[in-house]
Amino acid sequence: MKRIIIICMSAVILLAGCSRSNPIRLEAQGSFAVGGTVLTDSLGHTYHGDHAYTFYQIPIHARKYPLVFAHGIGQFSKTWETTPDGREGFQNIFLRRSFTTYMVDQPRRGNAGRSTETVTLAPVFDEELWFNRFRLGVWPDYFEGVQFKQDKETLNQYFRQMTPTIGTIDLDVYSDAYAALFDRIGPAIFVTHSQGGPVGWRTLLKTKNIKAIVSYEPGGEIPFPEGLVPEEGMVLTLSKNTEGIEVPLSVFMEYTKVPIIIYYGDNLLETDERPELYEWTRRLHLMRQWAKMLNERGGDVTVVHLPEAGLHGNTHFPFSDLNNVEVADLLLKWLHEKKLD
Amino acid sequence: MKRIIIICMSAVILLAGCSRSNPIRLEAQGSFAVGGTVLTDSLGHTYHGDHAYTFYQIPIHARKYPLVFAHGIGQFSKTWETTPDGREGFQNIFLRRSFTTYMVDQPRRGNAGRSTETVTLAPVFDEELWFNRFRLGVWPDYFEGVQFKQDKETLNQYFRQMTPTIGTIDLDVYSDAYAALFDRIGPAIFVTHSQGGPVGWRTLLKTKNIKAIVSYEPGGEIPFPEGLVPEEGMVLTLSKNTEGIEVPLSVFMEYTKVPIIIYYGDNLLETDERPELYEWTRRLHLMRQWAKMLNERGGDVTVVHLPEAGLHGNTHFPFSDLNNVEVADLLLKWLHEKKLD
Repeated sequence: MKRIIIICMSAVILLAGCSRSNPIRLEAQGSFAVGGTVLTDSLGHTYHGDHAYTFYQIPIHARKYPLVFAHGIGQFSKTWETTPDGREGFQNIFLRRSFTTYMVDQPRRGNAGRSTETVTLAPVFDEELWFNRFRLGVWPDYFEGVQFKQDKETLNQYFRQMTPTIGTIDLDVYSDAYAALFDRIGPAIFVTHSQGGPVGWRTLLKTKNIKAIVSYEPGGEIPFPEGLVPEEGMVLTLSKNTEGIEVPLSVFMEYTKVPIIIYYGDNLLETDERPELYEWTRRLHLMRQWAKMLNERGGDVTVVHLPEAGLHGNTHFPFSDLNNVEVADLLLKWLHEKKLD
Repeated sequence: MKRIIIICMSAVILLAGCSRSNPIRLEAQGSFAVGGTVLTDSLGHTYHGDHAYTFYQIPIHARKYPLVFAHGIGQFSKTWETTPDGREGFQNIFLRRSFTTYMVDQPRRGNAGRSTETVTLAPVFDEELWFNRFRLGVWPDYFEGVQFKQDKETLNQYFRQMTPTIGTIDLDVYSDAYAALFDRIGPAIFVTHSQGGPVGWRTLLKTKNIKAIVSYEPGGEIPFPEGLVPEEGMVLTLSKNTEGIEVPLSVFMEYTKVPIIIYYGDNLLETDERPELYEWTRRLHLMRQWAKMLNERGGDVTVVHLPEAGLHGNTHFPFSDLNNVEVADLLLKWLHEKKLD
């Protein structure tokens, strides 16, 4: 038996050197719905909805903690898959580095479209708005040096990776489903983006299985202790809400219990002449204050402005930008430092 | 160099015998949007929609023709993934047998939810209806010997793999997107289900790259030569339409040019006391007549009623039923006979 194991291990090692293209080797892959609710009408007929959908892949010799990926506003799991210009996204990059991945569509989005709400959807001609808010540039011009391939098909793919929200935005519905996922799969690392950031902060309170949170450009609701919301957290955003919310200190302290890292990209203007760009600058400032307050209370929160780490030109989607391998390397380094790999 | 190749091949052969679990080895995987349209408003603002979304996986040493999978009514690509009771679906079964797979969400469905239409969606309490129409049984009873695991969580997953259609049902919008996919990826085999059947018949006319069609329980529009629609094709269905449509003989003859196989499952009652069940029996009869007419004109169309092939208890979803490996084996045998593997 021992001899067979040695032969097999030798074969694995030999094979690893055999192909430059380095195949992805999976122990398993599959999909399932998780969480959600069941509505019942007056006659007892049922309707199952508001679950999340996840597609998972487990590489051979997987690392200890899976990565669970939460998309942002108007997006779905595609965010983490093939990039708009056709390169590998975080899905493949982290599989190749032996992480189990869970790609999730949150309730009422993408493959989890079975909403419990009644909603009217219509085409909205707002693609230029997202071009600006996602910091590719100021329509129709790209920022100089932006990490985004400037051709027609890339932009075509970029716009088509948006998909409607089937129902109202409800962070509790979203975080309930994510918590159900963590409860099902066991300890894992939560990787969030944009509006997924607030979903992550809320999910942490609902499950014991989040071992760390990695958040790319979180935007939206962020919890502070009562009476301690900073000025930036009380500003009315373009979405017509304030992002700082008050929670009891005991709740705030939950965020000191797991390591957290937050990344923001480039082109964060320090003037508010373009509010859709300045909003991200304000969020960076706000998250830095959040980190400071948590770290003063024993937390382990890091905020990285990518240009300060030597990465320039990143948009709101650093994980799919042209330099996304370097962005992944930064994350790997942190995971290693925190003994999470 | 030759020596390296020999070592590598030996490593592959050694490794193949090393694990009972037999990992899935991928040369590549990724996703993209394909087809669709761009709407422009009076101010020149754009909206990209009505594309399909596909997730593809290319195993190492892939067979010649990829399989492109088209889901049916109310479903999305999940149809082909993990089964409701948690076993491997056709996605993994055919990957493990070295077929490249393209899982598709047709326009206005699942991950391709960016519709060009305005639509109001609401929960519909019709799950019992689908339990019957998809031939699990007659609610709340299962058919005796049905190939479906009878527990609560399986049914929960089954209902949650339904997702709304965001817009009207439009076979031209669907088949345009599928044709764009075939045009992009080259020669491939089209595997369709239910309403995807008619999508397949229509797509064949729009691309040169469909090498064969495999259709599980097709239901809906089916083309016959002018004046030759059989009686079963003129019956008003539960969906309030007739399924036989008239096309010029030259169009009909297109279906003689590629091998086609059609499968129907079990519990096809010969009486119409339950119209939602009898509808499938009538479709089996209709497709047999279609096959006969095509074969008389040089076609290569096979209709398989699974019980006659020794497989019993199959529902409307043979590819995810408890005996889906045997269902896959039948298909593999046919692909081999037609030199399509």
